[in-house]
Amino acid sequence: MTMFDPLTIIKPRVRALQAYTLAPDRAPIKINQNENPFDLPTRLKQETERRLQARAWARYPDFVPVSLHEKLAQFAGWTADGVIAGNGSNELIQATLMTTIEPGKRVLISEPTFALYRQVTTVLGGEIISVPHAADLTYDVPAILRAVAAHAPDVVIICSPNNPTGYRLADSDLVQLLETTRGLVVIDEAYFEFSGRTVVPLLAAHKNLVVFRTFSKALALAALRVGYLLAAPELAREIGKAVLPYNLNAMSQTAAEVAVEMYDAELRPLGAQLIAERERLFTELQSIAGLAPVPSQANFMIVRTEIEPRRVFKELLARGILVRDVSSYPMLKDYFRFNVGTPAENDALIAALREIFAAEE
Amino acid sequence: MTMFDPLTIIKPRVRALQAYTLAPDRAPIKINQNENPFDLPTRLKQETERRLQARAWARYPDFVPVSLHEKLAQFAGWTADGVIAGNGSNELIQATLMTTIEPGKRVLISEPTFALYRQVTTVLGGEIISVPHAADLTYDVPAILRAVAAHAPDVVIICSPNNPTGYRLADSDLVQLLETTRGLVVIDEAYFEFSGRTVVPLLAAHKNLVVFRTFSKALALAALRVGYLLAAPELAREIGKAVLPYNLNAMSQTAAEVAVEMYDAELRPLGAQLIAERERLFTELQSIAGLAPVPSQANFMIVRTEIEPRRVFKELLARGILVRDVSSYPMLKDYFRFNVGTPAENDALIAALREIFAAEE
Repeated sequence: MTMFDPLTIIKPRVRALQAYTLAPDRAPIKINQNENPFDLPTRLKQETERRLQARAWARYPDFVPVSLHEKLAQFAGWTADGVIAGNGSNELIQATLMTTIEPGKRVLISEPTFALYRQVTTVLGGEIISVPHAADLTYDVPAILRAVAAHAPDVVIICSPNNPTGYRLADSDLVQLLETTRGLVVIDEAYFEFSGRTVVPLLAAHKNLVVFRTFSKALALAALRVGYLLAAPELAREIGKAVLPYNLNAMSQTAAEVAVEMYDAELRPLGAQLIAERERLFTELQSIAGLAPVPSQANFMIVRTEIEPRRVFKELLARGILVRDVSSYPMLKDYFRFNVGTPAENDALIAALREIFAAEE
Repeated sequence: MTMFDPLTIIKPRVRALQAYTLAPDRAPIKINQNENPFDLPTRLKQETERRLQARAWARYPDFVPVSLHEKLAQFAGWTADGVIAGNGSNELIQATLMTTIEPGKRVLISEPTFALYRQVTTVLGGEIISVPHAADLTYDVPAILRAVAAHAPDVVIICSPNNPTGYRLADSDLVQLLETTRGLVVIDEAYFEFSGRTVVPLLAAHKNLVVFRTFSKALALAALRVGYLLAAPELAREIGKAVLPYNLNAMSQTAAEVAVEMYDAELRPLGAQLIAERERLFTELQSIAGLAPVPSQANFMIVRTEIEPRRVFKELLARGILVRDVSSYPMLKDYFRFNVGTPAENDALIAALREIFAAEE
């Protein structure tokens, strides 16, 4: 029998941490996780299954998924030895922080943002320097630059376009940040396809820039967990030492290769349709008294509401629509978030919000 | 343009680390990675594909794969809140070390063993206490207990049956270790199905015990990367804080559930056949002058050879057989390793070795 408390072996900062969780609500219209509502086109699924049938399931995947790295290099306009594919971009966030952060090191983030940056930094014993967004929810670039000067963070992580605010950091601001800091700057481009812009052209001149991307949004593969990292090859090589061997399973690697190969023909048009729907939603929601949507460069949007967000969430859920209640996030106590759905789903959302807010008049 | 060297941000211990790599040799008979040579039975693949067709690929997997945890709990004879499934057991090794190890902490391992324990510990800044195996390559239990007393390691990791030696730690020795140490004891049971024994019954009384298992060996799913951890629920909860959300993709979760459901009917008989083949190989190799196989509790075996192992490796490769050259590992300069193949593959290996060693007489 064990005669001591094994939990004493767990780092105190980990024990103090709240586990990251998600409420298990379900509804016919699910627009709470920024997923692609169109699903992966059938042709791509069939091609993935066809390639998988030619393969033994009992054999390990590639030690490093070289063929996917080469396709991603061409897709992104970067060099294959500066690409790492991972089990979701989460894994690459973790690898980047594992190779740089330990007690005494600092990570700067602009909040509210994706919760995982803070979670992983804390597990590793690093200190979070949090810079709040400006009052209008855009990045407070002067405050970020001041914090960089004051705290000399080892890593700055900016989600751009940002989840959940939808704003994109201007390239000129990023260049200033890259040239001011003496640390790494990570740009999480999970949603870049919906902004029509990318920071990848800055990689060549800025060897402290790291870019994360994902297959979970525009590429419609959230079920299969694929992300990738772009960085200078010498930096990618170091981060790669914390990426576990065989990290990407064979099925996900295959599906990702198919998605890249067929992107222009099958997926890009769906992305364009989501952007058009986002603009339609913005205009429609602006016309509803009591709602103020925030312009977004992503496939989701936050909306300020004069009715308490928790009540809006519940009223929508009662109508079969699941959105994200973000009102507990810093600065967002009057907001909810939804992602762009199919045209029919968007119609249903607009109609439901009109009904909920009309009842208030 | 970046005016400083971004590699200075990488922790010095990471920069000093050699990246873990694998030679890309290929051959018709591949017995170098301890995979299951029979592949996943067709019925299981078809059932996996059938379930996957009912699912949107653009939707995230379960936040936590609860249904798989429940099946694994029943399969292993433990409680579901003490189970964590991961993207290979590698991810769970990493999570366990992330929540316990930082600079100033110590991990004890018995070497030679699986290389990842040392790699991840080093990335996290922990110190490795390495205890060599006894001269006969069994665990040197008295030396392990002395090192525990001298160094008070936070975590002890024992691969049992051990890769690459094939020995299993006796339960009585494990109990002594569990009751002596003031840290966690991790038993990596990747190969337990081939030993017919498990340490899971010790979990109830020993709350500092953590067990890792994998679907990559007996369960014939190496391509899909699934592993799991068993521990006291309160300990699993803490380790879970370093497991990334959505860590297990939907396809791998589905395949793992199918494999557990159909294990007795489809996979257990294949495992029994591999054990029988292992014993046949041991007897046959004993009869070849110049070879001394080491008895194994796993699906692989190391063999001492009077011909230089690198030459044996090359001679076998020339005959279409890929084994593992382990001669650079500590204590193993006269050994090579192979895993048990299909009966036909094993016949080919025996014939090739007879030919290579007959030429030496």
